[in-house]
Amino acid sequence: MTLLFCSASDNAEDWRREIAQRLPGVEMRVWPDCGDVADITVAVVWKPPAGMLASLPNLGLIVSLGAGVEPLLQDPTLPDVPLVRMVADGLTADMAGYVVLQVLRWHRQMEEYAALQAAERWQPLGHKPAGDVTVGILGLGELGVASARSLRSLDYRVVGWSRSPKTIDGVESFAGAEGLAAMLPQTDILVCLLPLTPDTHGLLNAALFAALPPGAVVVNAARGGHVVEADLLAALDSGRLRGASLDVFVEEPLPPGHPFWRHPGVRITPHVAGITHPSRCAQQVATAVTAFRAGQPLPNRVDRRRGY
Amino acid sequence: MTLLFCSASDNAEDWRREIAQRLPGVEMRVWPDCGDVADITVAVVWKPPAGMLASLPNLGLIVSLGAGVEPLLQDPTLPDVPLVRMVADGLTADMAGYVVLQVLRWHRQMEEYAALQAAERWQPLGHKPAGDVTVGILGLGELGVASARSLRSLDYRVVGWSRSPKTIDGVESFAGAEGLAAMLPQTDILVCLLPLTPDTHGLLNAALFAALPPGAVVVNAARGGHVVEADLLAALDSGRLRGASLDVFVEEPLPPGHPFWRHPGVRITPHVAGITHPSRCAQQVATAVTAFRAGQPLPNRVDRRRGY
Repeated sequence: MTLLFCSASDNAEDWRREIAQRLPGVEMRVWPDCGDVADITVAVVWKPPAGMLASLPNLGLIVSLGAGVEPLLQDPTLPDVPLVRMVADGLTADMAGYVVLQVLRWHRQMEEYAALQAAERWQPLGHKPAGDVTVGILGLGELGVASARSLRSLDYRVVGWSRSPKTIDGVESFAGAEGLAAMLPQTDILVCLLPLTPDTHGLLNAALFAALPPGAVVVNAARGGHVVEADLLAALDSGRLRGASLDVFVEEPLPPGHPFWRHPGVRITPHVAGITHPSRCAQQVATAVTAFRAGQPLPNRVDRRRGY
Repeated sequence: MTLLFCSASDNAEDWRREIAQRLPGVEMRVWPDCGDVADITVAVVWKPPAGMLASLPNLGLIVSLGAGVEPLLQDPTLPDVPLVRMVADGLTADMAGYVVLQVLRWHRQMEEYAALQAAERWQPLGHKPAGDVTVGILGLGELGVASARSLRSLDYRVVGWSRSPKTIDGVESFAGAEGLAAMLPQTDILVCLLPLTPDTHGLLNAALFAALPPGAVVVNAARGGHVVEADLLAALDSGRLRGASLDVFVEEPLPPGHPFWRHPGVRITPHVAGITHPSRCAQQVATAVTAFRAGQPLPNRVDRRRGY
């Protein structure tokens, strides 16, 4: 069988090596060198050109190299074949590491201490015990649960919000609009790990920021579309929010001159909170391909109506 | 009974409130207002003046407000009464938080991304999966184990070294000089959480740095005396070490003009990795006092020969 690999963000040769180890006998082609497109039954992709997947007549499976699949779902020509998304270990640990790093950098005043060092000043600032700091996680899927678990191990109080109520040890769970309204006022650091769907688009807006306690921090590791960027800037400028750690943006790369770049309250990373490491994620691709060939149920198959 | 509180680093009134809630009927005096010193049977202290404890004729118990007691043991007039040290939850979580923050800031290139943001440059740098990064922890007591557990939850490979071999789930344990020699070459980020004893004084020296892989990082959250500061500077200047996160120093406050302040590879915090939060640690003081009054074994009692 033949697999087509298409991603501008990933190293195809690293993937070829990892795939070959796990799926011997499978031919991997790298877009745009597709050869006879009729051969291709599986596509492994990240942000493929619109219409590309529709040009593969015998496509039977799409594997997304990212956890979020909304770039695919936005393509009206997306073939109606099973779609699997990445929830591999390396990605989950990456995302949890990003979340824990952002929570700690704000709680433990890392930038303030860097400024004190630059001034050669020895000045303990004091900080609350982690148990008195509440981290609110929007989205309690694989990534949210992993983040919550690591934060709990550091004694943070963790609350979470999701579409349907969840039971997670040590985490108070909220659901629905009422649940969100109840959770926000007790959240010192709000972490967004939601899938981007019509329901969650623009959820981090002026009304949400106003419901957080004064001086709260926002961390977005999900998608730029979750945030109304003008509302976030206004909440930061007014001092309502202490700061924001942003890994994702409405437009990526973040355009030159965007006010986030120079804002003293914004910490930017270029969409690297969770990266797809071939050595870690190839096994999930192999598992999906193997299940597909055997006609078995596909792990992490996307429900297109839900969007994840 | 009467308790004497003596610390220049802690807020006595916060402690008075927390102690009163847990030990009703116990009178707390704050040094230097000792009243009749013959009343005092318990001293709760952090870096008391040398000789002060020896001036209390009926002292029966000393409670250290810190986890490290070597400032007390260095006082030759220290009375020969039971000595208890702080291993309370808030302190442990604080220390683990500091360790995890430092590991993540180096692994996830936080300063590099801050510099890119200042230059308005969008440039993913890539990073290894956490599972390919080995953190070596010197000292596998309460603080080391808590740090190891949080790091494991983020998928870091964790190895550890202690006086005697330990069994900790998911952590490869080393002991003795041979164990240290075996552990160092595989350690990307070395974390010191040891007690300061004659055996561990100056352990982080040129020979140890030379045994680490090139580009390793050193994190010291224990005591300044563990590090030979000139050797650390030389290892940083030669590029042998990528960087160091230092919370503790041979002389504290770190003196103005010390080369650490301006070194591009050094991240300084002013001895705040683990602070003693009254709301979190008062219970441990109460437990010690209650056990002392009842003549029962004292939790976290210091073995003076070992030094912890």
